[in-house]
Amino acid sequence: MKIALLTDFGTRDPYVAVMKGVIASRTIAPILDLSHEIARYDVLEAAWFLRTAAPWWPEGTIFVAVVDPGVGSERRILGAEENGRVFLAPDNGLLTLVLTRSASVVSIENPAYFLPNGSTTFHGRDRFAPAAAAIANGTSIDDLGPRLTSIVRLDYDPPQYGEVTRGTIVAVDRFGNLITDVERARVPHPRFALRGPGIMIDRLETNYADAEPGAFLIVGSSGLIEISVGNGSAAELLKMKRLDGVEVIHST
Amino acid sequence: MKIALLTDFGTRDPYVAVMKGVIASRTIAPILDLSHEIARYDVLEAAWFLRTAAPWWPEGTIFVAVVDPGVGSERRILGAEENGRVFLAPDNGLLTLVLTRSASVVSIENPAYFLPNGSTTFHGRDRFAPAAAAIANGTSIDDLGPRLTSIVRLDYDPPQYGEVTRGTIVAVDRFGNLITDVERARVPHPRFALRGPGIMIDRLETNYADAEPGAFLIVGSSGLIEISVGNGSAAELLKMKRLDGVEVIHST
Amino acid sequence: MKIALLTDFGTRDPYVAVMKGVIASRTIAPILDLSHEIARYDVLEAAWFLRTAAPWWPEGTIFVAVVDPGVGSERRILGAEENGRVFLAPDNGLLTLVLTRSASVVSIENPAYFLPNGSTTFHGRDRFAPAAAAIANGTSIDDLGPRLTSIVRLDYDPPQYGEVTRGTIVAVDRFGNLITDVERARVPHPRFALRGPGIMIDRLETNYADAEPGAFLIVGSSGLIEISVGNGSAAELLKMKRLDGVEVIHST
Repeated sequence: MKIALLTDFGTRDPYVAVMKGVIASRTIAPILDLSHEIARYDVLEAAWFLRTAAPWWPEGTIFVAVVDPGVGSERRILGAEENGRVFLAPDNGLLTLVLTRSASVVSIENPAYFLPNGSTTFHGRDRFAPAAAAIANGTSIDDLGPRLTSIVRLDYDPPQYGEVTRGTIVAVDRFGNLITDVERARVPHPRFALRGPGIMIDRLETNYADAEPGAFLIVGSSGLIEISVGNGSAAELLKMKRLDGVEVIHST
Repeated sequence: MKIALLTDFGTRDPYVAVMKGVIASRTIAPILDLSHEIARYDVLEAAWFLRTAAPWWPEGTIFVAVVDPGVGSERRILGAEENGRVFLAPDNGLLTLVLTRSASVVSIENPAYFLPNGSTTFHGRDRFAPAAAAIANGTSIDDLGPRLTSIVRLDYDPPQYGEVTRGTIVAVDRFGNLITDVERARVPHPRFALRGPGIMIDRLETNYADAEPGAFLIVGSSGLIEISVGNGSAAELLKMKRLDGVEVIHST
Repeated sequence: MKIALLTDFGTRDPYVAVMKGVIASRTIAPILDLSHEIARYDVLEAAWFLRTAAPWWPEGTIFVAVVDPGVGSERRILGAEENGRVFLAPDNGLLTLVLTRSASVVSIENPAYFLPNGSTTFHGRDRFAPAAAAIANGTSIDDLGPRLTSIVRLDYDPPQYGEVTRGTIVAVDRFGNLITDVERARVPHPRFALRGPGIMIDRLETNYADAEPGAFLIVGSSGLIEISVGNGSAAELLKMKRLDGVEVIHST
């Protein structure tokens, strides 16, 4: 087992270091960082990150995802298991994109697995970290709390594929690529174009490097349609940003 | 044993990578990052970080804390041991908040544990890293140099608890929370308020999530009184910053 | 064996987390971060980082350096071995400063070691990560592809040492130190001065801490001549930046 951490805590504050200390005090499982640079409280960004990264990790990985604007409120903490991977996260939609209906999900609420005298402000330390360590040491998620049959869903509409597919820019990466949620494989057109606010792009490239200047479409490494720019930032050139809407249409 | 690193080096420059290489060349003990984002030369920030994080780590952890504006000068390098944890840091006050009077402290000066032909500008590589690796491999801190009976103290006055407790904002976290050095448990009043430059707050909440807009007080996860704002940054709203003074008083 | 990662991916995007997942799925070798904060596409910065850090790591380290503006183009992927260390990088000059002529170098092109159905946009995931894992598990670099007798060199001229040594600022660190590529040990003058655009400095210090205000020269921890400023940033004070030229001359 290994424990992979995803938070919006940054690394300048001691919160991540505290979580690692609690985990390291309770298990010898290796601790790895996915990212601590998720934008503050941005559950959708964390959900996309996890959806993108988790499938590449081996069975036996315990993902601990703490982007938790509701910490200390009545929101539940989820423990989920699917295909040999375990996910811990607040019940705020963070796991919506990574789990399917066949996942087993519990509400983590057995205080035997929490730190004693825990706070209302730092469940990453008091609940997530000790629960993750317990799972790494062999505890079943069913020992942590009762099964759930429904969880909070993200406030996010996935694309409906058809003649016109309406999608969303779900990420802007460090290179300025605008990443949509539209899967190329599900677009029904043999050739396609993308329409956004004031733009229409039908040039398609297969790699960033050989591209001439200007904006183009490319099918990114996760199979999603991206807008990119040769030797520059599509976000800057096109003044587009995350959550902007796009339409994928037929192209001749 | 495991080795936990805390520096103000950032990760864009190769300094941390060099330190890790020296350690990995000399021991199989795992290396973990606490943070490398301490503000440049900010010994007080590092001291608070270490005080907050270190107690959560297990016995057998070797903390290597290098925030070292005096590197190459006559300042000493400390090796300290308390409750099964070891701390290496320059003698500039960095360990003031984490050690008690019962700690064992030595001056690390035995050149047998340093890299040969070391520099005057990078003791993290030439002295801290090999000394940490030696300790991980079983060397006692007493082999590293002579015992000390006093160390340099931080230029920082802790609160004096009483009718009026004068404290200090010692950290501003990524969420804009203003964290004071006042421990709620030592404030003698059953109810309390906080007075700062131009502000008076007596609203107390128990979690960030359920809070109405506006500034409030909250006892943070380390037991310290914090100023927070519902869905916003207290630092921005109140124009307060680290090292500002505050007073905790009786409230009716 | 251990695997050390160097990229320009940042940590907010999921790319590094995906690479770690692929590696962790295929080998138990520990994964360590050198840096992911190399400036986007800045091959020279990555080359200097690697040259500075790699020599401090033990034999058996596999360096995976992905700063790869040419991903998906015809550029090759190099696997190199020297002194028991292995280096994987695009053939774009990144390894120029760390390898000598005695290194063994192959072109990694055996698809048996790549992920199936790989992309043209993310070779870090599809080629570098599985190749690194294979090497960690005992595969020889010669199994990965044919030997090469020449590789792409950096567009960078090292100093020619002499009466006047013309060098370059190759890095500006977090503390504002201006790091040249001029090795003090190869400058023929017993005493030296540095001349740059509008400046002449002949004051030499041996540590940062004891220095009086103003700019001075110092031989840094890698033996390179640096420009520094007591309690301040040389880059800010002198308005100098990376790639500026300097001259090292005789001083009386």
